[in-house]
Amino acid sequence: MPRIAVFPGSFDPFTNGHLDVVQRGVALFDEVIVAIGTNSSKQRYLPIEQMQDLIAAVFRDEPRVSVRTFQGLTAEFAREVGAHFLLRGLRNSPDFEYEKPIAYGNQHVNPGLETVFLLTSPTLGAISSTIIRDIHRFGGNVDAFLPFSLPPLAK
Amino acid sequence: MPRIAVFPGSFDPFTNGHLDVVQRGVALFDEVIVAIGTNSSKQRYLPIEQMQDLIAAVFRDEPRVSVRTFQGLTAEFAREVGAHFLLRGLRNSPDFEYEKPIAYGNQHVNPGLETVFLLTSPTLGAISSTIIRDIHRFGGNVDAFLPFSLPPLAK
Amino acid sequence: MPRIAVFPGSFDPFTNGHLDVVQRGVALFDEVIVAIGTNSSKQRYLPIEQMQDLIAAVFRDEPRVSVRTFQGLTAEFAREVGAHFLLRGLRNSPDFEYEKPIAYGNQHVNPGLETVFLLTSPTLGAISSTIIRDIHRFGGNVDAFLPFSLPPLAK
Amino acid sequence: MPRIAVFPGSFDPFTNGHLDVVQRGVALFDEVIVAIGTNSSKQRYLPIEQMQDLIAAVFRDEPRVSVRTFQGLTAEFAREVGAHFLLRGLRNSPDFEYEKPIAYGNQHVNPGLETVFLLTSPTLGAISSTIIRDIHRFGGNVDAFLPFSLPPLAK
Amino acid sequence: MPRIAVFPGSFDPFTNGHLDVVQRGVALFDEVIVAIGTNSSKQRYLPIEQMQDLIAAVFRDEPRVSVRTFQGLTAEFAREVGAHFLLRGLRNSPDFEYEKPIAYGNQHVNPGLETVFLLTSPTLGAISSTIIRDIHRFGGNVDAFLPFSLPPLAK
Amino acid sequence: MPRIAVFPGSFDPFTNGHLDVVQRGVALFDEVIVAIGTNSSKQRYLPIEQMQDLIAAVFRDEPRVSVRTFQGLTAEFAREVGAHFLLRGLRNSPDFEYEKPIAYGNQHVNPGLETVFLLTSPTLGAISSTIIRDIHRFGGNVDAFLPFSLPPLAK
Repeated sequence: MPRIAVFPGSFDPFTNGHLDVVQRGVALFDEVIVAIGTNSSKQRYLPIEQMQDLIAAVFRDEPRVSVRTFQGLTAEFAREVGAHFLLRGLRNSPDFEYEKPIAYGNQHVNPGLETVFLLTSPTLGAISSTIIRDIHRFGGNVDAFLPFSLPPLAK
Repeated sequence: MPRIAVFPGSFDPFTNGHLDVVQRGVALFDEVIVAIGTNSSKQRYLPIEQMQDLIAAVFRDEPRVSVRTFQGLTAEFAREVGAHFLLRGLRNSPDFEYEKPIAYGNQHVNPGLETVFLLTSPTLGAISSTIIRDIHRFGGNVDAFLPFSLPPLAK
Repeated sequence: MPRIAVFPGSFDPFTNGHLDVVQRGVALFDEVIVAIGTNSSKQRYLPIEQMQDLIAAVFRDEPRVSVRTFQGLTAEFAREVGAHFLLRGLRNSPDFEYEKPIAYGNQHVNPGLETVFLLTSPTLGAISSTIIRDIHRFGGNVDAFLPFSLPPLAK
Repeated sequence: MPRIAVFPGSFDPFTNGHLDVVQRGVALFDEVIVAIGTNSSKQRYLPIEQMQDLIAAVFRDEPRVSVRTFQGLTAEFAREVGAHFLLRGLRNSPDFEYEKPIAYGNQHVNPGLETVFLLTSPTLGAISSTIIRDIHRFGGNVDAFLPFSLPPLAK
Repeated sequence: MPRIAVFPGSFDPFTNGHLDVVQRGVALFDEVIVAIGTNSSKQRYLPIEQMQDLIAAVFRDEPRVSVRTFQGLTAEFAREVGAHFLLRGLRNSPDFEYEKPIAYGNQHVNPGLETVFLLTSPTLGAISSTIIRDIHRFGGNVDAFLPFSLPPLAK
Repeated sequence: MPRIAVFPGSFDPFTNGHLDVVQRGVALFDEVIVAIGTNSSKQRYLPIEQMQDLIAAVFRDEPRVSVRTFQGLTAEFAREVGAHFLLRGLRNSPDFEYEKPIAYGNQHVNPGLETVFLLTSPTLGAISSTIIRDIHRFGGNVDAFLPFSLPPLAK
């Protein structure tokens, strides 16, 4: 039975830190599904379809990585795609404290679903998607943090 | 003079973790008032009257626990009901850091009002109201986390 | 070359804790610019012009401190005013974790811009602007936390 | 049944922060027992008998506070003296994380023993016994942190 | 190529929390090696040979789990046994902050060695080996925390 | 009056992370004194004289940096050398929580002595002196973490 992991997130945008987690996840799992969650109550900075295409292009030559979007509970999505693992990167203590109750909740909804944490490498994890958005919003260049070039925000 | 404690919160919903804190608070205080704060700027997931009724039913046989709603400052509400103590549960470090400035603020508004912290038991504190809401919102069953059965969300 | 530091924040309101950081910053830098950031997506509690006037009055007799407002990235504002340093106060771990990625982001936008942290003194740092707003909103007196008297909120 | 609390610690030395916790504990409990734990594997800075006498003198006029020394498990000592509560002060997150597993361990050894946490006031909690010892060891004056005057360390 | 993980620790003693991590690790890896590190500068509470035998008995019927002792760097031991993964349990933020630099150090010594973190379940992770030793040292019963019965400490 | 800062530590060994802090400190202060504290109760891994020589060689061409050893309180040493600032690097929350009471203690001993914190850059701060010692002790190469080559430990 292949070991399939879902790597869920809003990826708004997907960063080099996320890329790092996927690449290391591929050494651990047979298949990694990058899963962009859609949350109707939270407005995205970048359209979800654009992000899905950008991420898919990054992993064009890696058949074991796919990119999906989903609605609803991550734990249900994992069940649908036959994944027994969730993959998450950890940068710092607040990340960890944030992830902990979510992992327990996921285990409740989908018993046996295991959340596996990898450390984001220090350089790549130093800057968050939030900061990247702030820089981009005001016209700054954020290419150094992303595995693709982000076009200037449409006004 | 009886030792009266206010246990304030949004209780959206009231969980087994909250129940645990109240039950242990009853061993420490003569009276515990579960006080559901109303905050006009933050929309509730569950109506406050429904929650008040559900909690009141939980403590039907415990005359030393009552359930109230309040508006405004917790410290003022404590003064109105003659409580010299606030009761709060702690699950983890972020809880603690969140509570600290609030406790100092309450002490400023109502000098002598003491905030008393109890540890939520590890199993009951593992999942937060936020996670419970997320699971319920998407149709998951959350009865394991609550001292009552929550009807499916009205669409 | 004078050492100029920008002390950025929303200062909603400016507190005695902020005052403490500026006063100690003046011992370290030749010039400190208190910079009130305007963030269109977040509504202020107190008008920015009122706050600028109140802070300016506090430092009326300190020629090395000035008060400015700015839009956009802090790191760009620092470049415009010729500042090589950002000054920030730290009260607790969450403050620190919040500041860390911002500091790295600022360094990316403006290489060589150094963020310098001072410890807020324990008494003055015990209560945050958020708590002060909550107390004031409900009619409580907050003069003990501020270097000026705050008029009751206009209804 | 009187509410008796044990306030355990090494109190090497007992500080104004500890004093603050006891004084506030007296408002919550009928009786507070300051319990100096003896730990054969850890050498004290100040002799335990000297510390017991100094603390006892501080509470000379407070009949509800007594000072004891004990060996072994805190939870067993609490049982012996008929205390159903442990009283602990919290200053910061590391304090909290340190206390958490100890509280669970105590509850295991003595089911029903409840650990009650109070916030040390920010000024008094800013400096730890460790720092006070370091200052005193090198001849510095530490009277500002203690409810008694500490004689210079015997060489 | 089988996925082999080393689960390193001092296991003084091995607890139900550790057992939980191994059992969940077995779902993720093809082989898990419980590796008891020997550290000449730190005296053990329980002899390493006794602990190795106790742990081995726990996994008697699980051929994919073995128990080893090692000296020196964990990352070198992993290389010797052909493991590309280190398995670690996380209970709380201090655990995480402790593990982070160790993981980076291991990656330096043995590039490509990936540290994989699983969440210890809340009940099992509530009490540490340190607390268990303290309780046992003073004659308390610790069977509830261990997957075997610990004989009273030889005097 | 020149702005003089003391950068105190045990520097056992001095790392690239420390180097980073000094180099950035030189942009902020007129003079930085690297001050190796001697603590009779704690045995060093590397002799203090060797470390002083190694650090001094690193800053051979930087006249504004000097290297000193000291005994006793850091705050007293700062007074002796006419420094009004202590310089410290911060990597993570535990660093911050560790530094906080020390900074308050130093301010008590030497009022007006200001502790100034800079963020260690993420790559350089990822590995601590403790980890470096562990790697070196077992024969690993640690040159990547140090601004000098460390000879193998004399047996």
